[in-house]
Amino acid sequence: MTRLLAVDWGSSSLRGALIEPDGRVLEERYFARGILTVPGGEFPLVFENCFGDWMNAGTLCLISGMAGSKQGWREAPYCACPAGFDDIAGHLQWLEPGRIAIVPGLSVDRDGVPDVMRGEETQVFGALTLLGLNGARLVLPGTHSKWVSVRQGRVRDFSTWMSGEFYALLRQHSMLARTLADGETVHDADAFSQGFGHALRGQGLLNTAFSARTLSLFDRMSALALPSYLSGLVIGEELKAQALKPGDTVVLVGAQTLTARYQQALEHLGVSVERVGAPATGRGLRAIADTLTRA
Amino acid sequence: MTRLLAVDWGSSSLRGALIEPDGRVLEERYFARGILTVPGGEFPLVFENCFGDWMNAGTLCLISGMAGSKQGWREAPYCACPAGFDDIAGHLQWLEPGRIAIVPGLSVDRDGVPDVMRGEETQVFGALTLLGLNGARLVLPGTHSKWVSVRQGRVRDFSTWMSGEFYALLRQHSMLARTLADGETVHDADAFSQGFGHALRGQGLLNTAFSARTLSLFDRMSALALPSYLSGLVIGEELKAQALKPGDTVVLVGAQTLTARYQQALEHLGVSVERVGAPATGRGLRAIADTLTRA
Repeated sequence: MTRLLAVDWGSSSLRGALIEPDGRVLEERYFARGILTVPGGEFPLVFENCFGDWMNAGTLCLISGMAGSKQGWREAPYCACPAGFDDIAGHLQWLEPGRIAIVPGLSVDRDGVPDVMRGEETQVFGALTLLGLNGARLVLPGTHSKWVSVRQGRVRDFSTWMSGEFYALLRQHSMLARTLADGETVHDADAFSQGFGHALRGQGLLNTAFSARTLSLFDRMSALALPSYLSGLVIGEELKAQALKPGDTVVLVGAQTLTARYQQALEHLGVSVERVGAPATGRGLRAIADTLTRA
Repeated sequence: MTRLLAVDWGSSSLRGALIEPDGRVLEERYFARGILTVPGGEFPLVFENCFGDWMNAGTLCLISGMAGSKQGWREAPYCACPAGFDDIAGHLQWLEPGRIAIVPGLSVDRDGVPDVMRGEETQVFGALTLLGLNGARLVLPGTHSKWVSVRQGRVRDFSTWMSGEFYALLRQHSMLARTLADGETVHDADAFSQGFGHALRGQGLLNTAFSARTLSLFDRMSALALPSYLSGLVIGEELKAQALKPGDTVVLVGAQTLTARYQQALEHLGVSVERVGAPATGRGLRAIADTLTRA
């Protein structure tokens, strides 16, 4: 059993946590050094600058996320679903044998159209470990939300929803940018519910998004409330497509700030929510590390 | 019967046509002087510079489009649907009595959520006049496509679909911007059909848009074909929501370049298409002018 440096290296951020064999987190670091900021060839240097002092003799480093993509440190080919914890633990891409490895992502194919994830697979297995489950329906909200079905310890299917990105596009670059209040606004739960309800009744975001403009035009909603309304429209669109039924249970994975609106929306649909916070990645990587030590 | 200056003054462009009482178009002009480029108070000056030489004693000028919005020359309040040709002709906003007027747009209210159009109402009535119809289902593709139901000469209902804007957002500002080929690409009818089909089978654009990324990632579609594929996804999303049946007829209004893909998609669904091109606005304004002369 070794000390683990658990790294989540995504498109826009780089996080590391130093974790004891017993799971205790000694220290955490965050850097705005997502892979999109790292020129090719400079990954080892950035890694050394950020975490070099933690990589003494006994430390194993496991990296999940976009660092394993074509644009990342080194490509770790996707494991095809259905795929279990053992599949990803058995297909690590070693950068320094026995010392630093990248965790592969997952892919799935539906009617010739692929879907992919990188990083979320580790959160999924971490969350299930934390909850003591080997099957669940999970949602990981974000720029690209993932909905994941796990049965008997294997990811059977998953899908990507560009909800966070659509929200940002509409908020920042569409004609709605002139209508919605600028910058951070206080979350308006009523406006969110109104948007969510309109999305559930509506015919799709291409149409419902326009209501953010017309409600403003007719002075039926304030510019300050509109960002929450738009958020409700987008999250409503995502949830409507999941065919959820009252009484279903969904495991909601992610930081509180990101998942609070999903919890509100899911509970509105009568869906039970089990929450797992930020430690999911660390727990997932710790579980992989333990496998290696046992092997 | 007077000579008519028919003006379509939208957000991003300004078009004028000088039309004889018999409908003959004498001359047309186009300017990149949409209302968003005109500082408040300078509308009369821009108008004079663009069309002053056409405004001799006998000329009547009718203006449709965003020039009648709050941000335009002067606000022309919306006519509430159901609304007929006589309603818009009877609620002109006169800038110079008997000489220059703005045509009002239309509004509709569904469950407390308004929808609006400005300019398309004139195209709708112009298209119906050209076709000799007093009822039809019409689609006017564009940045904000309009689907319009007309019965017995009155617009009963309509809805806005931000398809052109979503396409541009995804193409230019989303993570797909890095995946899709830059600039103008040749339309790829196969890729368009593939995107259209995926949208019809799919669960919504939040999900299907991601396939433009993954098809590229797995080398299943070239960067050059992806813009057409994305266009098929977006137009498919719009058409899917219209609940069209084989044998339905739709009047497709707009310039050839804009409507060709809609025609391909509608015919794929077994829907009969009647096309009306660019003259729809001029014909609509000519019809209003004739009403005034008769009054």
